[in-house]
Amino acid sequence: MSGDERRPRATIKDVAKAAEVSPMTVSNVINGRMQFVSAATKKRVEREIERLGYRRSSNARNLRVSEQRSIGMVIVDESPAFLADFFTCQVVAGLANVLNHADYTLTIQGMPGAELAQSMIMRNFEVAGFCAMISGPKPERLAAIERLADLNQPVVVFQQELPGAGADICTVRQDDRGGGRLIGDHLLARRVTDILAVIPRQPWPAVENRVAGIRDSIAAAGSTAEVTVLEAASESFADVQAAFAAYLDSHPLPGAVVGANDPVATAAMLLLTDRGVRVPEDIRVVGFNGFEAHRYARPHMTTVLSPAYAVGERAGEAMLARLKSGNFAHPDHVLPVVFDPGFTT
Amino acid sequence: MSGDERRPRATIKDVAKAAEVSPMTVSNVINGRMQFVSAATKKRVEREIERLGYRRSSNARNLRVSEQRSIGMVIVDESPAFLADFFTCQVVAGLANVLNHADYTLTIQGMPGAELAQSMIMRNFEVAGFCAMISGPKPERLAAIERLADLNQPVVVFQQELPGAGADICTVRQDDRGGGRLIGDHLLARRVTDILAVIPRQPWPAVENRVAGIRDSIAAAGSTAEVTVLEAASESFADVQAAFAAYLDSHPLPGAVVGANDPVATAAMLLLTDRGVRVPEDIRVVGFNGFEAHRYARPHMTTVLSPAYAVGERAGEAMLARLKSGNFAHPDHVLPVVFDPGFTT
Repeated sequence: MSGDERRPRATIKDVAKAAEVSPMTVSNVINGRMQFVSAATKKRVEREIERLGYRRSSNARNLRVSEQRSIGMVIVDESPAFLADFFTCQVVAGLANVLNHADYTLTIQGMPGAELAQSMIMRNFEVAGFCAMISGPKPERLAAIERLADLNQPVVVFQQELPGAGADICTVRQDDRGGGRLIGDHLLARRVTDILAVIPRQPWPAVENRVAGIRDSIAAAGSTAEVTVLEAASESFADVQAAFAAYLDSHPLPGAVVGANDPVATAAMLLLTDRGVRVPEDIRVVGFNGFEAHRYARPHMTTVLSPAYAVGERAGEAMLARLKSGNFAHPDHVLPVVFDPGFTT
Repeated sequence: MSGDERRPRATIKDVAKAAEVSPMTVSNVINGRMQFVSAATKKRVEREIERLGYRRSSNARNLRVSEQRSIGMVIVDESPAFLADFFTCQVVAGLANVLNHADYTLTIQGMPGAELAQSMIMRNFEVAGFCAMISGPKPERLAAIERLADLNQPVVVFQQELPGAGADICTVRQDDRGGGRLIGDHLLARRVTDILAVIPRQPWPAVENRVAGIRDSIAAAGSTAEVTVLEAASESFADVQAAFAAYLDSHPLPGAVVGANDPVATAAMLLLTDRGVRVPEDIRVVGFNGFEAHRYARPHMTTVLSPAYAVGERAGEAMLARLKSGNFAHPDHVLPVVFDPGFTT
C-alpha cells in the first residue's frame, strides 16, 4: 500500500510511525480486523490517519479484506419507489447504523422480483452478506430467498418465517401474528362480529401474519366472528378508498375495519368520516405500525406499535455476529409489538 | 478470471463460448463497459451468464473497473433514523433505480456531521462518486461538501445551491424558493398580514429557501406583511405542538401558519382544530411536499407538491453522464414544484 504517485501523500508507513505501531497494525485498523487491535491503539491510529490525511490507494490496497466491508440490502418490491414504505425505511436506517458503527457499509438495491437474479447487487461479489426485504406471492418469495442462498453468503431475511431454511440464513421479524391476535382480542372484547381486513394486492408476509393473528384470536375464543379480506390495488390513499367504497356499495357496514397498516386504515377511516359514519361509535378502525404518521389521524386510531428501527438493528447485530463466528447463533429473531388502543376504547 | 476452485463452476470462457463472443466481450458486459457492446450481444451474454450460473470469482476479477461500480450516498443528519424523512427516502429510491439500471449499486450511510470525515463510506475507495444530502448550519454543510470534494471524485449535492463550487460538483434541487414565493403570493392574495413559519431547529437549506421565498413574495408585492420564524426542537408531532402551543400562549393568532413540511403543518393544524380554531376560516395552514401523507390531513391542506423521486433520478442521470463524459454538463439542476391550494382557497 503506497500513496498516490501523482502528489506527495501520507503512506501507511507514515501513519505507523506517527502512531508508534507497526504498518500491519495500521492495516488491521483500516481493514477492520479489530480482533488484533486494542481500542486505544485503534483510536491512536485513526487520529493519525485523520491528521496526516492518509487514504488508501485504490489500486494497491488489500482487496480480499476490504471488498467484504459491505453488506447488500435487497428490497424486492413491484413499485419503483421501493423506499416509499416507512417500515422499510426504518429497518434500513437501523441496519445501516449498526453496520456503519462496525465499519461496514450498506449497499442497497430495490427491484421487482423478476429482476432479482440479474440485479447488479446479486452479480456483485463485493458484499460480505445479504439482507433482504421481500414482498410478493409466497412461491416467488421462497424462490428469491433460494437465489440469495445460492450465493453461499450469509443472508438475513426480514419479516418472514423460514422454518428449516439453510444453515446460513437467519430471519428477523416483528411479531405480526401476535399483533394480529391483540387486534382480534381487542375487537372481540368489544363484541365485534364481522371484521373487514383491507390489504394491498401485493402480498407481504407481515400482512398475511397480521390477518392470521386475528383468525387465531377468533379461534382461541371459540367465537363465530367472521373475517373478510378486501384487496385494494395498492396501499395508496386513492386505491384503498376506491376498493372500500365499492365494497360499501354492496355490503352492510362491518363492525370493524382493520388496515394492513396505518395509512390503509386511515384512508378507510376518512372515507367513513367524510360520509358521516362515526368512528368508533358506528364502526371501529384499527391500523398497524404506529409510526409518527398515525398521530396525524383524526379520530385517534387504534394501532399496534412496530419496532421497525430495532428490527433493522437486530439484523445488523445478527449479521455482524455471524461474520465473526461463522454461523448464525439464532435462526429466527422475533421482536415484540405493543398494542396502542388510541382513543377508540 | 476463473471459477471457484472448490467445485466446478462456469468460467468466463464457458460463457464466451456459449454466447459466441470473445471473453473480452463477456468481461465488458460484466463490468458495464457498454460502449463496446451492442444491446443484442449484451442480452445474449447475460442469458448465458444466467443459464450457466457464472459468477465472478472474488479474488481474481478485474478490480480496477468493478470497484467503481458503486455510488456512495451520504446522508448527514443528527437523527439516527436518517431515513425517517419521506423526501430523503424518495430521493434515494429515484437515485438507486437510475443507477441500478445502469448497473451501478448505491452504497448508503447516514451519520451526524461530526462523524462524516471518519465514516466508513468516506474512507472507502470503492465508489465512483458521491451523492450527498446534508443538513446542519451552513458553515458545517460547506465544510462537509469540502470534505467530499477533497476525495477528488465527482459529487452531486442535493437541495442546496453552491455557486462557484469546484468543477466536479453538481447540485440537484427542487425549486424550494419558488415554492415559498407561491405560498407567499397565495397568502398575500388572501390578505394575510402575519405569517408564522414553523421549522425544526436542525437547519436544512431547503427549509431556509422556502422561508426566503415567502419573504421574496412580500418584498415583490411591496407588502408590509411580517414573517415570524418559530423553531421547534424537531419536526416530530410532539415537538411541533409544544413549540406552537407555547407560542400561542403569549401571542395573538397569526393569519397563517406555514410548516417547514406537511407533517409540521399538520401537527400545527391539529393543535388548532383540537382547540376549536377553524381552518381556513380563522387561520390558514400551508405545508410543503404534498407526499401521500398530506392526503390524510383534515381539513384538506394547502401545500406545494415536491418532485422528490425525480430529484433522485436527475441526480443519478447527472452522475452517470459525468462518469461517461468526465465532467458535469450543468452545475445546478432545479426541478419545478407545483402549488396545490387544497380546499382552503
